Amino acid sequence: MVKDVSLQQLKVTLSEFARVRGWEQYHSPRNLLLALVGEVGELSEIFQWRGEVAKGLPNWSPRDKEHLEEELSDVLLYLVQLADVCGLDLGQAALAKIVKNARKYPVINLSD
Amino acid sequence: MVKDVSLQQLKVTLSEFARVRGWEQYHSPRNLLLALVGEVGELSEIFQWRGEVAKGLPNWSPRDKEHLEEELSDVLLYLVQLADVCGLDLGQAALAKIVKNARKYPVINLSD
Amino acid sequence: MVKDVSLQQLKVTLSEFARVRGWEQYHSPRNLLLALVGEVGELSEIFQWRGEVAKGLPNWSPRDKEHLEEELSDVLLYLVQLADVCGLDLGQAALAKIVKNARKYPVINLSD
Amino acid sequence: MVKDVSLQQLKVTLSEFARVRGWEQYHSPRNLLLALVGEVGELSEIFQWRGEVAKGLPNWSPRDKEHLEEELSDVLLYLVQLADVCGLDLGQAALAKIVKNARKYPVINLSD
Repeated sequence: MVKDVSLQQLKVTLSEFARVRGWEQYHSPRNLLLALVGEVGELSEIFQWRGEVAKGLPNWSPRDKEHLEEELSDVLLYLVQLADVCGLDLGQAALAKIVKNARKYPVINLSD
Repeated sequence: MVKDVSLQQLKVTLSEFARVRGWEQYHSPRNLLLALVGEVGELSEIFQWRGEVAKGLPNWSPRDKEHLEEELSDVLLYLVQLADVCGLDLGQAALAKIVKNARKYPVINLSD
Repeated sequence: MVKDVSLQQLKVTLSEFARVRGWEQYHSPRNLLLALVGEVGELSEIFQWRGEVAKGLPNWSPRDKEHLEEELSDVLLYLVQLADVCGLDLGQAALAKIVKNARKYPVINLSD
Repeated sequence: MVKDVSLQQLKVTLSEFARVRGWEQYHSPRNLLLALVGEVGELSEIFQWRGEVAKGLPNWSPRDKEHLEEELSDVLLYLVQLADVCGLDLGQAALAKIVKNARKYPVINLSD
């Protein structure tokens, strides 16, 4: 069975990953932000010449899907680290944002 | 006690959020990708005129920190949804990427 | 007759614009880069929920086109200023890059 | 003497560049926008681990400066092409935006 992955778990793992490699000195907020922008660029490059892409990525090769998984992950890993060095709890912030969005965009029951 | 937040939980919650609002029709991969880029832009705006920012955000107001939490969250929420409509498991992909990175950048024990 | 607009002209105008407002102190390379990323985000927001967009923007309102012109301009203005504070000549660099690209991607005459 | 480079000149050159290579079919607005985002990512990568960077790039190698010139150019070239396929005049739009900004941020004469 595949286990669920939590933001807390990623944060702790990445923090230790950087610590044992002596990388903490480079992980200032703006350095990590620019690294995140760099990865968003690589993510965009995957989609840039394809025209509209259908959900589920039909006709994408396993290799292209794996490449996409890596770039999505790179964005996530820098995002988790950026929140961490800022001292913010990304998971709780995300839940709070969903609650705020739910109030901003109430569900309209069209069948009434 | 604060509970941990998982990527799976966010995915399910956001998928239901979009479904009950009739938004699934807009959630094509490239639409979500451009929405993510838009949020990365808003995240960057927070940092743009500050010069270098220290870890932990000393001297930031609670309001500025909350704004940052919201923009970090917006990036995460679109990233989770983008992976979802592409049919990819973001959490597993992130763990796999960390393993790959660990092989690419082995720890060097400087005290040996 | 509409006069042509040069990168040199934009550079000089923007440099003076910042100088008389006392903004030069904020125009470090990374500040301008993050401001540029912010504007690219706003540009992306214009396109994010539209699905594929046809050339020439048929069916776009004059108001939407004007909004797009403003965001394209904002990206350009920060790009010109970023090159300027880095001490680089953007126009000459662009010409050189086109020459390099022409060598990298030679024209193939399919009728031969 | 170095000649000035105009946006009109870049537009015409790039349009012809794409035409003779049969690339026009790929140059939809959103494809070019995502390509631009990709180049902004590469631009960010140059600055990501450097901490704050001083104006004029002291201590940067000629090679690093040339790399930066290329990435700045790539962003510009896609921006010019994006405006072109949208049927917009980027140079005139930029001038109009500077005028608008000048009204929004009037010069305050502090010595009065």
